[in-house]
Amino acid sequence: MSLLDYFRSSKPSSASLAKERLQILVAHERVSRNQPSYIPKLQQELLTVIQKYVNVGQDAISINYEQDDNQEMLELNITLPDESEQNN
Amino acid sequence: MSLLDYFRSSKPSSASLAKERLQILVAHERVSRNQPSYIPKLQQELLTVIQKYVNVGQDAISINYEQDDNQEMLELNITLPDESEQNN
Repeated sequence: MSLLDYFRSSKPSSASLAKERLQILVAHERVSRNQPSYIPKLQQELLTVIQKYVNVGQDAISINYEQDDNQEMLELNITLPDESEQNN
Repeated sequence: MSLLDYFRSSKPSSASLAKERLQILVAHERVSRNQPSYIPKLQQELLTVIQKYVNVGQDAISINYEQDDNQEMLELNITLPDESEQNN
């Protein structure tokens, strides 16, 4: 299953359709750990970029970071305000 | 299955472990389409940010964009140079 298929299969239920959502995932497969991770700095820069486009506070953003032996994963979940609110 | 579980289950086979890989996925669930998409501009900014951290040319980046009725998905796949190459 491709990643896009995954997203397609995990569509929101109708009950949750009222909210817009922006989800960003970063996965870094690392061959070795000789170099320090740049994911924490990348996370800050990604949030800065995103906040140019969406008008949300920190409380609308949930961040999840996980790593295992050869992979780092960063997940940013942003609940967007309704369009009517955005237009205010 | 959570998104992080998906990534964990789709680990590269040992044959593909020789290459480092950075994958970024952006999924925007939209309630309505009254506003133009900002994904194309966001894509450019994301690439600019990423290229601060990884030294790759355009040929190392593959971009996949899909949309359906209530979702846009952007996938950036970046094949990273070996660390030995990065250190040169």
